[in-house]
Amino acid sequence: MQATGIIVEYNPFHLGHLYHAEQSRKQTGADCIIAVMSGPFLQRGEPAIIDKWERTRAALTGAVDLVVELPHLFAVQHGDYFAKGAVETLNHLNVSSICFGSEEGHISPFLTAHRTWQERRSSFDRILTSHLDAGNSFPEASRRAYESIGIQDLDVSRPNNILGYSYVKAIAEYAPSIQPATIKRLKNDYHDEEMTGHISSATSIRKDLHHYHEITEDVKETLPASTIRTLADYKFHKGLWHSWEHYFPLIQYLLQVSSPEELREIHGMEEGLEYRILKAADCTSFKEMMETVKTKRYTWTRLQRLFVHLLTNIKKKESYILDSPVPYVRVLGMNEKGRKYLSIHKKNIEVPLLTQLKQLNHPLFDMDIRAQKAYLSPLSAVNRTEGVKRERMPPVMI
Amino acid sequence: MQATGIIVEYNPFHLGHLYHAEQSRKQTGADCIIAVMSGPFLQRGEPAIIDKWERTRAALTGAVDLVVELPHLFAVQHGDYFAKGAVETLNHLNVSSICFGSEEGHISPFLTAHRTWQERRSSFDRILTSHLDAGNSFPEASRRAYESIGIQDLDVSRPNNILGYSYVKAIAEYAPSIQPATIKRLKNDYHDEEMTGHISSATSIRKDLHHYHEITEDVKETLPASTIRTLADYKFHKGLWHSWEHYFPLIQYLLQVSSPEELREIHGMEEGLEYRILKAADCTSFKEMMETVKTKRYTWTRLQRLFVHLLTNIKKKESYILDSPVPYVRVLGMNEKGRKYLSIHKKNIEVPLLTQLKQLNHPLFDMDIRAQKAYLSPLSAVNRTEGVKRERMPPVMI
Repeated sequence: MQATGIIVEYNPFHLGHLYHAEQSRKQTGADCIIAVMSGPFLQRGEPAIIDKWERTRAALTGAVDLVVELPHLFAVQHGDYFAKGAVETLNHLNVSSICFGSEEGHISPFLTAHRTWQERRSSFDRILTSHLDAGNSFPEASRRAYESIGIQDLDVSRPNNILGYSYVKAIAEYAPSIQPATIKRLKNDYHDEEMTGHISSATSIRKDLHHYHEITEDVKETLPASTIRTLADYKFHKGLWHSWEHYFPLIQYLLQVSSPEELREIHGMEEGLEYRILKAADCTSFKEMMETVKTKRYTWTRLQRLFVHLLTNIKKKESYILDSPVPYVRVLGMNEKGRKYLSIHKKNIEVPLLTQLKQLNHPLFDMDIRAQKAYLSPLSAVNRTEGVKRERMPPVMI
Repeated sequence: MQATGIIVEYNPFHLGHLYHAEQSRKQTGADCIIAVMSGPFLQRGEPAIIDKWERTRAALTGAVDLVVELPHLFAVQHGDYFAKGAVETLNHLNVSSICFGSEEGHISPFLTAHRTWQERRSSFDRILTSHLDAGNSFPEASRRAYESIGIQDLDVSRPNNILGYSYVKAIAEYAPSIQPATIKRLKNDYHDEEMTGHISSATSIRKDLHHYHEITEDVKETLPASTIRTLADYKFHKGLWHSWEHYFPLIQYLLQVSSPEELREIHGMEEGLEYRILKAADCTSFKEMMETVKTKRYTWTRLQRLFVHLLTNIKKKESYILDSPVPYVRVLGMNEKGRKYLSIHKKNIEVPLLTQLKQLNHPLFDMDIRAQKAYLSPLSAVNRTEGVKRERMPPVMI
């Protein structure tokens, strides 16, 4: 029984995701689709619109057979660490291949690009550093560095190509026995803010949801029935769809009572940035604060990630774990096929396979728990308590 | 022009407080009544029901001429440090006397008790330590120690006698030129939870306000018109009367994302208590959490103070300031008489007299600002911003 891995956030699970999962199965011929999914907070430094258990349920009702959680520390990082965490997790589960969506749609340009980078790595590093020193953001500096070393076949200005390239690099480095594969994305850019019918980006869907505070007909067209139901239920029971603004009072409070020295301990707080941020502590909204702090160098995404680290209290001294191997796999949910896959492969899984809380004492896992509790903080006391209890229960089974 | 000082919390300002201020003027023959008042958080470790500016306004409409703020760090401490902060502040303002309410009603038993204590101090300390070691709370251990050294004329089991005794001790130690004076309290115990007509304890008034969420006729009888108006306006504009439950989501969040090591840095966190508190992090209300953590040794008041320190992020390493002289006087409000007093005495005031924010760079003052911002945190973004702005404006003038 063979599996292909996919790397996802499902924020929320939409028809494009369904297509990706189905095509991954078709293209790789895998029996089982395993998704490694970000938990409460996402790669671009945002709280997930609904919680990971609900997103898991929607994915399992779609084409996914097994959902495992990308540890929080890895989930809220730039592409390289994000890819490392995801690839190592999938490797623990013995997937044969990893299949990602890209604008490119063919795997060979990724492999060629990776070979070029390996051959010209020292030039690449030098050029990257010089662009960073010139005040460019990391994504911009690396885009220019890739172009400079002659990566031509792969358009590294496209967001999913860049992310895919990170996966290919991580596979080569941490799990060379895995086959990388890619499928062409149907139409939308990852960053697209406008809805584009049937297949729309998650960004545009969230924007619509947060704007109208209800599931419009336009949004319904883009979602499988299970996601529509899940979103509606969540709003009804928990009273909100999570967005940064719900966490703003907490962020503001933290800035107002913390010293520069304390802020400097937070992962991602670059020297001097704490003073810039403290000056924005009396803003009236998250958006206003972000606009006040943002510069060319401190991009929106990077600042959002920093605020996730602040909210989840991730310290610089804890970030060394990023360079260690992922030490466990936490199962969020599975269907019959996923269960079967796990029971066959269990004996070959060399790290603890967590299906309930309190099964592991590890600083990385502590962060997952901490992040989930911070994620629940805008909910009512009853819903927070229920959310904490949910963490101790078995995975979603459908 | 002579002044008498009174030490107050006004939570809220009621007819008993009015009587105390008027009697203090009568008994001491002072021209000016100066109140040193706790700011956002109170001695027993609670948020004030409405903010300090509103409480100042009500006091000035009553019989008080000048209101200054007891620095936050001193305001949320046991009697001895509380008294030190208050007495030093009043001493900076050259008051001739300090007049406090007590169950006793005469000053001589306080002075006799203080002489006895001075003579038998080493026995007192030894007995106190042994009672503490036996697991008694600080108030209980000191009550027993006072009895053991033969303080008979003063009933040290009465809360206002104890507090008054702390004032007498602090005056002798830090401001011996000030005359202590006392007036008999009309009827209520400080801790009384039941309303007793016209003169009722602030505790019983708050209990009624928080229970009914409105100003009942019973409560109206106990308050001057200015307090009734102020309470109603505050509820209307800010949406609440502050209570611990409003801060519970924040406290819970802090416990959920903090490590034992971080909690151990908080002022008042005794060795081992952090683990006991962390176990209660998943409670559903402040009350439930307090009941879970409370023991004979960790009294309700002591735990509440600890949670104020957690909320206002006061660290152990900052508490050394308690043993230094109070380095400024912050003016919250005054009437014509208060203004006149200040203009006459200004030249003799040896510390900065603060009438607007950003006039001082001192760690003790930083804590005042931090505490006020933490106090504002349950309000809406607009009201938080307004509250922060209010801090930078001049005192209340009536």
